[in-house]
Order: sequence, then structure tokens, then C-alpha cells
Amino acid sequence: MKHKIENNLIKIQLDIINAFESLESENGSIISLDEWKREEGGGGKTFVIENGSFFDKCAVNFSSIKGNELPKTALANNLNKEVNYGYKAMGVSVISHPKNPNVPTSHMNVRLFGILDKNSEIDEWWIGGGYDLTPFIVFEDDIKEWHRNAKACLDGINKDYYPCFSDNCNNYFKIPHRNERRGVGGIFFDNVTDLSLENSVKMLESVANAYLGSYMEIANKRKNIKFSDTEKDFQLIRRGRYVEFNLIYDRGTLFGLQSNGRIESILASLPNNTKWQYKKTKEYIRLEKELLSTINKDWNV
Amino acid sequence: MKHKIENNLIKIQLDIINAFESLESENGSIISLDEWKREEGGGGKTFVIENGSFFDKCAVNFSSIKGNELPKTALANNLNKEVNYGYKAMGVSVISHPKNPNVPTSHMNVRLFGILDKNSEIDEWWIGGGYDLTPFIVFEDDIKEWHRNAKACLDGINKDYYPCFSDNCNNYFKIPHRNERRGVGGIFFDNVTDLSLENSVKMLESVANAYLGSYMEIANKRKNIKFSDTEKDFQLIRRGRYVEFNLIYDRGTLFGLQSNGRIESILASLPNNTKWQYKKTKEYIRLEKELLSTINKDWNV
Repeated sequence: MKHKIENNLIKIQLDIINAFESLESENGSIISLDEWKREEGGGGKTFVIENGSFFDKCAVNFSSIKGNELPKTALANNLNKEVNYGYKAMGVSVISHPKNPNVPTSHMNVRLFGILDKNSEIDEWWIGGGYDLTPFIVFEDDIKEWHRNAKACLDGINKDYYPCFSDNCNNYFKIPHRNERRGVGGIFFDNVTDLSLENSVKMLESVANAYLGSYMEIANKRKNIKFSDTEKDFQLIRRGRYVEFNLIYDRGTLFGLQSNGRIESILASLPNNTKWQYKKTKEYIRLEKELLSTINKDWNV
Repeated sequence: MKHKIENNLIKIQLDIINAFESLESENGSIISLDEWKREEGGGGKTFVIENGSFFDKCAVNFSSIKGNELPKTALANNLNKEVNYGYKAMGVSVISHPKNPNVPTSHMNVRLFGILDKNSEIDEWWIGGGYDLTPFIVFEDDIKEWHRNAKACLDGINKDYYPCFSDNCNNYFKIPHRNERRGVGGIFFDNVTDLSLENSVKMLESVANAYLGSYMEIANKRKNIKFSDTEKDFQLIRRGRYVEFNLIYDRGTLFGLQSNGRIESILASLPNNTKWQYKKTKEYIRLEKELLSTINKDWNV
């Protein structure tokens, strides 16, 4: 069963890689696909596009690692789990930093934790994940459609999920020291134990597919819009917020650092170009005002 | 006495500002000097140069804030201090990100914490601070001179200081998830209570002056060396390490975020241009190898 789940997750990764590669039209981009092993057990595959025609950077990671002691970031809400025969943590995570500031940055993650029995089979499990959108230049229609799709996906599994998971997302992707949210939300869930192991994996697949469909629609709709140097600069500065969130608050990143993960893969999510600018221009302030009024409110449908 | 100390710290800030401005030869740079107040009490002055001829960015901050409850990051080593009538935290902090990768990035901080009595006078105090150097392209002579100067400065106060404080620095400026140090060290001290209030302030002045003398010497010696695009790119990627350290590990940054400080000033330390690149070029690997063998060892004299 472990291997079947791994294969399902690799299929998710592959679908996203194929879709993302279809957005790249030129040859100048650097595309990497690295397989890696972890000393303590397990490994993964890291796919990255850098300096592409569509992506400044994107990372599509698959990993399946084995460990003996659960890192404290693996469990939310002070849950306690006894681990006698090790655990497995398997997942796919995606971050996209498109070149064009009219296309939002996006993030998706699906993961399954399994506590192993003495035969190394998954005995207890829980899933987590979700996806969220971080626009730079605002298109309200895209945001509404993003949430409608997320709701449609989750309503097919459990009608209680979307209201709860979209709230989670608003609460999780916050940057307290900036008094800002990271973006316009989406869905976020953790420690979900409602479903059979098979249905848990199916749910992860549905979430990943819903993300990919939604994001590709936006990407194709907005990728050819012209943008100014000021708008590009605005995007580079806003990417700094993304770095701040990932390094200070993100549990996924902290889990990676605490579980002795492959650093290059964990931090492949960080953008290749980022600016922290002290002095704000008038044009920057105008763009920021519009964006903040958009991201600092609920878009749940 | 509180105001006298503030004035001494403002003098430190001013000397550094004047020296840094002397490195800028063109008119294109953006120079900001903002005074700010904090709702809970106190405030500061933030000086920033951006896009200069010498500095990509530098920040020279003075702050003097008042609070009622000590944030947990204010005290190292689980010290406990009772605060009945509030505390003062005063200090100057400097970060320089020069344009030319032949000139290292540098950091300096001097600070005094005072616990107030019922007359709002400083009743108990401790000082902290230090400075450290983060080279990109290696000049061993500069590193040795940097440490000799630090030793000379501290030997004038207490012969036990340099051996201890240079060790502290090596231990503090570490990036565990990269298995790297931040740079070649210098000195770092905290919770120093040996000296009278007056001599505590004198020590902070000596440390700041030693830093400024050492850094200006290196800056003037290396600022006209030509550099390649590859070397510039290497610097931009290495700056990412600086961001990782500051956002994940630095107690000064965390103190700022926890004490509801002025975010723009606290994060003015972050570079205006940074890259996280996944794929390493051959030339990058060569430069990195040389740098890592330099920074991952002790330079204490």
C-alpha cells in the first residue's frame, strides 16, 4: 500500500510538471529534475524551472521519507502520537513564481503521514494539505473562480470541508509582523483522519487536480498581458513577503529543516529574484494599497 | 542619565552615517533618514542608503524604546529579571550590503537594556552587541586585520573579553540547516553586567568605533577592484544566506518582531537584491568552495 500511495503521489507530481512545462515556450529556461536519497531513509524527486519564459522559478517536489521520531512540527494542536516502529511522511508540494506579475504566485501541498506497525505497514494515518493564491495585480474574477473551484472539489467529498478549510487557510497564511495575509486564500487542512487510507489518497488527488485546473486557467488567461517595470518591481518586493512567511512561520518549511530534509529541495520554494526596498515610490504605494485591500479580506464563497 | 546615553548612541549612529556617506560618490543613490515614534513609548531614527554607487543597501538604526514586559528574546540563558516599572532598550545597529562583492557585508550592533526604578531611572542594566564580517570573495589579510583590531579594542577593557566574545561570535552566527557559518566572525557579547553604567556605555562606544575603523579600511582598500557578472551573481545568492539567518535565527530580529517594533526599520537589514538559485554553475561551485573553506573555520587571533 505504501508503494501504491507513493506512485499516486508521483503521478500527481508528473501531471503538474507536464502542465507547467507546457507554459514554457522558449529554450532559455533551466529545467532540473533531481532524484535524491536521505540518509535516514527515503528520498524524493525535485523538479525546478528557473529563468523560464513563463516562470522566474517554480518547484514541484515529491518526497517520501521515513523517520523514527516525529518532529514536533508534524502534528498540529498538540496531538500526541506514539511512534514505535517509525513513521512515513509522503507528499507533493508546489510553488510557482511566474515572471508576469499579472499571474499570481501559487502554492499547493498534499501530504500523508503514516505511523508504521511492526511489519512496516501504515497502521494509523492522517492527511494534510491545501492550496492558496498570492496575486500581485488584482483580478477579482480569478479569485472568485479559484474559490468556487475549491468549494466544488471539496463539496464532492464532504460538505463541511470547504467552509472549515477555507477559514483555516485565511488563518494560517498570515504574516503577523506585517499585519497582512499572504494572499487571497484557498483551502488548508491538517490532521484529517475521517477517511479510509484509500479515500485519503483519493482526496489528495482531487485537491491536487483542482489546484492544477484552477491555476492553469488563470495562467493561460493572464500570461500575455503586458506589464511595466514598476509592476515587475512591485512583484519582486512583494515576493519578499513570501520569503518572510516561509522562513518565519511556515510549518512545512520548519518540518523540513527539523527533519534533516534536503535543504535544496525545501528551499527550492524561495524565489530566485527578491527585493527588500526601504523607500516606497508613489506608484508602489498605489499598487500596494489596491493589493492589501484585496488580500486582507475573506474571499470564501 | 538615560538621555545622556541616548545622545551617546545617536553620536555613534551619526559617525557611521558620515563615514558611509563618504563612500558614496554619485547622486543616484536614495538616502533616507526617518524619525519614528512607537505607540508604547520611545522611537528611533532609521538611516538607509539604497542603490548607491558603493552600497546596494545599508541601514544604520538608532532606537530607544520603553516597554513594560521584557520580551523573551531580550534575555539569553534563561535569566530572569523582575520588571516592575518598565524597561528601556537602546541601541544602534548597522548592516551594510556593498555593491562590490570584493567588499564584505558587515553587521554591528551595540545595545543597552535598563530596568527602571519607580523614578524611571535605570536601576539595573546589561549590555550586548558585537560585530561580524561576511565576505564573498576572500582576502585573508582583511580577515586577520579584522580580528586583530577587535582584540586590540577589547584588550583595552578586559583581557578576558576577546577570547570569550570571539568564540561567542563563531557560535552565534551559524546557519545550522546549511551547516555553514554566516561569515568569518568577529565579536559577540550579551548580558554583560561587569561594568558601571558609565563604563558600559564607553565600552559600546569603543566597540562601535573599532567596527567602523576596521570596516572603512577594508571598504577603501577593496572598493575599486573590478568584478565579473558571475561574482556579482555569487554575492546575490550568498545574500540569501543572510536573509535565512536573520529571519530564522537572529535574536535581534525576533526581539524586534516580538516587541512590536517598527517593521520597516527592523527589516531594513535585508538586502534589496537577493537570489535563491537552485541549479549551481561550475563557477558558482568554485567560488562557494573557496568561501566555505574560509568561513567554516576559526579566525580568532
